[in-house]
Amino acid sequence: MSFYNFENTNPDEEDIHYMKLALAEAQKALAEDEIPIGAIVVCKNRIVGRGYNLTERFNDVTAHAEMQAFTSAAQTIGGKYLTGCTLYVTIEPCVMCAGASYWTQVSRIVYGAREEKRGFISKNANLLHPKTDLKGGVLADECALLMKNFFAKKR
Amino acid sequence: MSFYNFENTNPDEEDIHYMKLALAEAQKALAEDEIPIGAIVVCKNRIVGRGYNLTERFNDVTAHAEMQAFTSAAQTIGGKYLTGCTLYVTIEPCVMCAGASYWTQVSRIVYGAREEKRGFISKNANLLHPKTDLKGGVLADECALLMKNFFAKKR
Repeated sequence: MSFYNFENTNPDEEDIHYMKLALAEAQKALAEDEIPIGAIVVCKNRIVGRGYNLTERFNDVTAHAEMQAFTSAAQTIGGKYLTGCTLYVTIEPCVMCAGASYWTQVSRIVYGAREEKRGFISKNANLLHPKTDLKGGVLADECALLMKNFFAKKR
Repeated sequence: MSFYNFENTNPDEEDIHYMKLALAEAQKALAEDEIPIGAIVVCKNRIVGRGYNLTERFNDVTAHAEMQAFTSAAQTIGGKYLTGCTLYVTIEPCVMCAGASYWTQVSRIVYGAREEKRGFISKNANLLHPKTDLKGGVLADECALLMKNFFAKKR
């Protein structure tokens, strides 16, 4: 667990800082030849959960970065609900992960790049918990580039 | 793993048979004082995955019956995709589980009772994979009664 004091910085800087850490998680996925998506959960300037996509290694389509970050955050906090926490994830969450976030009641989701096709936003339904704020586009280019390069190599 | 031959029976009987097994999973949840929802995954008359709600024990809101049944089915089959499989679940899946089913490409979802408030159907969005057929209302009364009794005791 790390502690950062952002009292004297602005919210955007804070989000960029944490998105870089989510990107570091995505790099771990890339190093294992997994689709490079990473996530962290932050609560009161503490990183309480981390995760990166491991669907291939676990042979499990549910092993998304966000799912693992939620699960690890709940273990760290010792409670199921992530009220007061922020999920940082490099790519817009899918329906499954948006649905999981509903159950966690996470206070905020910050994502990097849009995922027009598989992301939950295009479903045009209120899938997030009413208490969850959503912000997108933080380091979007870096987050998207990781994905683009990964899939370019696969083709 | 069990094997049943339904060639000489009708599809409804087959669904009722398997829903009873999903109900048996729900009973396991009830025995652990968990919200009583159970699920199984069936592939070519073989049960390849099972699960019941364990959100309290695991302190994890993602530990729904369906999620565990999907994960265990993938391990049994040795592949991530559940094409040709049917998910039987006692209660209409939530958004998270519907989203997970999308990634599995499960061929069929059969649920027992509707879940008007937290089920995915009320979201009025195409959350399932286009290849996934949906059937509801199999042993709906039994499935709903388990839930009703559980929550009545909690109040």
